[in-house]
Amino acid sequence: MLFRSATVPLIPYDEAKPEVRAMYDNIMQTRKVNDVNNFWKALAHSPDLLKHVWERAQDVMKPGALDALTKELIYIAVSTANSCEYCVHSHTAAARAKGMTPEQYAEMQAVIAMASTTNALATSMQVPVDKQFDHS
Amino acid sequence: MLFRSATVPLIPYDEAKPEVRAMYDNIMQTRKVNDVNNFWKALAHSPDLLKHVWERAQDVMKPGALDALTKELIYIAVSTANSCEYCVHSHTAAARAKGMTPEQYAEMQAVIAMASTTNALATSMQVPVDKQFDHS
Amino acid sequence: MLFRSATVPLIPYDEAKPEVRAMYDNIMQTRKVNDVNNFWKALAHSPDLLKHVWERAQDVMKPGALDALTKELIYIAVSTANSCEYCVHSHTAAARAKGMTPEQYAEMQAVIAMASTTNALATSMQVPVDKQFDHS
Amino acid sequence: MLFRSATVPLIPYDEAKPEVRAMYDNIMQTRKVNDVNNFWKALAHSPDLLKHVWERAQDVMKPGALDALTKELIYIAVSTANSCEYCVHSHTAAARAKGMTPEQYAEMQAVIAMASTTNALATSMQVPVDKQFDHS
Amino acid sequence: MLFRSATVPLIPYDEAKPEVRAMYDNIMQTRKVNDVNNFWKALAHSPDLLKHVWERAQDVMKPGALDALTKELIYIAVSTANSCEYCVHSHTAAARAKGMTPEQYAEMQAVIAMASTTNALATSMQVPVDKQFDHS
Amino acid sequence: MLFRSATVPLIPYDEAKPEVRAMYDNIMQTRKVNDVNNFWKALAHSPDLLKHVWERAQDVMKPGALDALTKELIYIAVSTANSCEYCVHSHTAAARAKGMTPEQYAEMQAVIAMASTTNALATSMQVPVDKQFDHS
Repeated sequence: MLFRSATVPLIPYDEAKPEVRAMYDNIMQTRKVNDVNNFWKALAHSPDLLKHVWERAQDVMKPGALDALTKELIYIAVSTANSCEYCVHSHTAAARAKGMTPEQYAEMQAVIAMASTTNALATSMQVPVDKQFDHS
Repeated sequence: MLFRSATVPLIPYDEAKPEVRAMYDNIMQTRKVNDVNNFWKALAHSPDLLKHVWERAQDVMKPGALDALTKELIYIAVSTANSCEYCVHSHTAAARAKGMTPEQYAEMQAVIAMASTTNALATSMQVPVDKQFDHS
Repeated sequence: MLFRSATVPLIPYDEAKPEVRAMYDNIMQTRKVNDVNNFWKALAHSPDLLKHVWERAQDVMKPGALDALTKELIYIAVSTANSCEYCVHSHTAAARAKGMTPEQYAEMQAVIAMASTTNALATSMQVPVDKQFDHS
Repeated sequence: MLFRSATVPLIPYDEAKPEVRAMYDNIMQTRKVNDVNNFWKALAHSPDLLKHVWERAQDVMKPGALDALTKELIYIAVSTANSCEYCVHSHTAAARAKGMTPEQYAEMQAVIAMASTTNALATSMQVPVDKQFDHS
Repeated sequence: MLFRSATVPLIPYDEAKPEVRAMYDNIMQTRKVNDVNNFWKALAHSPDLLKHVWERAQDVMKPGALDALTKELIYIAVSTANSCEYCVHSHTAAARAKGMTPEQYAEMQAVIAMASTTNALATSMQVPVDKQFDHS
Repeated sequence: MLFRSATVPLIPYDEAKPEVRAMYDNIMQTRKVNDVNNFWKALAHSPDLLKHVWERAQDVMKPGALDALTKELIYIAVSTANSCEYCVHSHTAAARAKGMTPEQYAEMQAVIAMASTTNALATSMQVPVDKQFDHS
């Protein structure tokens, strides 16, 4: 495991401003952990972004019409296509914590690989959209 | 609905070579439709690619450890991040055909939007991966 | 074929400023054509960009250690991965004008599809680079 | 050279299941090497993906209408545009093993840079595709 | 100008649910326009997304440490790199409405082109980050 | 801070060819530094690319209709969307050297995050461009 430098200092709990520390407390209580991940410690340079992202994430990722694991799989898929190393790691860990089995992981990868292939093929041929997909 | 030009002619059934026509028959029987989509008609310029992609798609997208709808949602997520117009349209239609509800669609979009935001934030700060994600 | 709006007017020869008209003349003479493509007519809003891109393109795309067709194939591959509709169209046409055969086109597509798949897989697993690739 | 953590354990030969070991043997014999790269050791968590990707890669990358080096250059171009660190490294090494000269490398880079520039410009202006590129 | 199909119906004011209509009213009053753009009419399938995106956009795009035009330029840059046709169009129009001059537009494009080139070059060579950029 | 391997050797001043050394001298004098960054040392494998990129960068990034800091913000935005680790680091450092405040950094990030979200949403719904954006 490497420790790469961020473009901002990672702010530890002890050095955090009161409004940031309150967000850290909220994150730790919600996730039942003793420390917050590097993402939040980096984002803490902007209490507004920290608050916005944390609160929206809570709202978006909670089970609803889609269960929590399906949401994590979608998250991993987007993060992979966007080449976000941190996000791939953190959401693969989150998916495992929410019960993702090795078989599900392998099938998710196969779908991501398949989509990447047909995305490239459709784009390289500029295939026109079929009339039957019209929804307007 | 627009009809954009492709970089290759779309080969109709009547003009297809026997090996391509056999693939078209296979696609139409499997999907219980009377014609194949533009993607396959474009890909038909290369019978090898047509055969490879169709067979692999059948294998990858069938229900397994993940159900068929979850696989379509992952497909849409990748296609969106890769800006593939054709694939977004065809797999959104496929997801609906497999039972995606409006509520599931809205939640999928919310997850894609959330992931896109945190992907950008983690990348813009180059957040180092946490030790606890180490799997080696 | 669709005619999509650009974010800038496409400047026709007759309405072009002298410095732009001189560039158009240069492009038409070099390419032995009677008009310039939309890309140059759009870029003409900035004579500096028009001149820079045209001159650099002439220099980069001329045969050297790599032949002109190989350069077009690389161009298509990048344009596909970047989802640039215009560039995919114009450089696929350019590759054909430089002799790309249907077999070469099909194999190029197969490589683009293969790379897209393994790019996604390597990123989704965050595979560490092998020691033997070290070049420092 | 860094050793970054993957999201899955890299499976060494001695700990591999028989079907995975057989694939490793196939890879080592084909490539005339004594060990397999990290990509295959990571992919080994899914024998289906390992088998599919390896077999397809063998088929796609063999010389045909395009020679083996041209295929590697296309592979590098896609991998660069997709920001795949591992793939850039492994296919740059592969291209060198297949005879890529420093001059070819420099020209390939110049084309990738040129394409990246015009991709961005065409997209930022949303240039409409020229009628003469119509192929339908 | 083309009218492409969306994956969802665009909901006109007259057919909107009360909570969506209230958002439309808010958008029209804020922007001093008589109708809302297609983006909001599409997003209206999910009142939660509509509300979240509109409110966050109001907050993020208002002048602060960066002026409103600079924010639009950043928005265009991201949208270009992400190949979002709609977003490039709508935010280029927004930048012009906020006073972007032709000279500023041309310089912004030159920077986007330059960044796209060096992004590709740095990625293709996998240049290691310099020690002096370390901020941890 | 990590030191990752590049695909090319980083050429130090003492081992550089005269034409490369002259470019290094130019860079060091212009930037008032005692050494050049890794990007230039990597690019030095191709004196043509080194010269082209350095000269164009000088031209593009100098203050004009847009000030130097605004240009750096646009550069960071593109580099983030393109997932270029090196470029994000070097241009965030450059923006700070040109006076970027913590408040400006936070707002830039908020805009990048916002754009990433609406890019994904507009693409996932394939929203058709509004007539009023027509500029042709």
